[in-house]
Amino acid sequence: MALPPHDRQRRGRPGHDLDAVLAAAVALFNERGYDATSMDDVARGLGITKSSVYHHVRGKQDLLRMAIDHALDGLDDAMTQVRGLPDATALERLETLIRLSVLVLTSRLPYVTLLLRVRGNSDVELAALARRRAFDHDVTALVKAAQAEGSVRPDVDPATAARLLFGMVNSLVEWYSPGRGNAGTLACTVTALAFDGLRTRHL
Amino acid sequence: MALPPHDRQRRGRPGHDLDAVLAAAVALFNERGYDATSMDDVARGLGITKSSVYHHVRGKQDLLRMAIDHALDGLDDAMTQVRGLPDATALERLETLIRLSVLVLTSRLPYVTLLLRVRGNSDVELAALARRRAFDHDVTALVKAAQAEGSVRPDVDPATAARLLFGMVNSLVEWYSPGRGNAGTLACTVTALAFDGLRTRHL
Repeated sequence: MALPPHDRQRRGRPGHDLDAVLAAAVALFNERGYDATSMDDVARGLGITKSSVYHHVRGKQDLLRMAIDHALDGLDDAMTQVRGLPDATALERLETLIRLSVLVLTSRLPYVTLLLRVRGNSDVELAALARRRAFDHDVTALVKAAQAEGSVRPDVDPATAARLLFGMVNSLVEWYSPGRGNAGTLACTVTALAFDGLRTRHL
Repeated sequence: MALPPHDRQRRGRPGHDLDAVLAAAVALFNERGYDATSMDDVARGLGITKSSVYHHVRGKQDLLRMAIDHALDGLDDAMTQVRGLPDATALERLETLIRLSVLVLTSRLPYVTLLLRVRGNSDVELAALARRRAFDHDVTALVKAAQAEGSVRPDVDPATAARLLFGMVNSLVEWYSPGRGNAGTLACTVTALAFDGLRTRHL
């Protein structure tokens, strides 16, 4: 998990380091809602004192910000990776992005679940929505580029296509569980459906 | 809106009949959450007294049940329509179901938004989840039938395909607004993407 240097310094206690605190908090936020979860609940969930939790983070907003950033960093890293592909077509970049995004969602499931519930009720949430919009904008630009090179059908609106692609990807938070098949297989299924559709091709 | 006979009898007051009460309640449930909304809030939103609201419904659970049923009835009606198509292949039924479902979502958007947030916190919510599961089961059966007739690719798991199809359709509640283009065009875009994919076909 990529954390800022300041937060890294706060780590250390074996058994309940920052990652564990964050994971426990996210589980509670997803289960009961952010507002209904107290720092006491987080501490109790870990079986540690509240002051031990404050050893790692400044407060609840801090936990929310780090959790959401963990989800967004995964998606941004995927975009960076895709942009760095040498000699790739826009279509290949887009296909790789969808595949990588499925892997990010399956491996950071509770964090992305939390991200997708954010409605803009605080500065932390507003910042997250702005990052989501920037990501959506980049996906739309990729769809446009693929249309310009002739590899994606010209009859769909690029912004709508971007939303539908991630509508399909993001739906994973509603039904995916690690026990439900291999994440790699799922990534291939999503990509196949998105780019080639369900219909049998008669070549 | 299809309502049970008992509820129909309760209607009547011009300007704030049952449909208006329901619409106001659903808007508040979606904005603040079901738990945080009181019958007082619903009455205040309509500019009527609480007893006028109780003229139409027994209580808040009643409003939730009717709102959720309105969404589910739309989807079930689509399934019934699709099943009644004479001489249609399973693929044609599935394509029509996706198209009709987009139209149900766009025309009953706040009701479906509410439905998709239901987590099973009461008998009303548990009943809604059971109906959703039955619907998913029927969609999976349609995908299977289309695979059996050879019109849908055999390399995807039918239940996963059903979830991804409706993941795409249901994502509309996150971003669709009536101002954002024609619902019919959107229904065609979703169906095209689902069955033929984004990739340009070179025939």
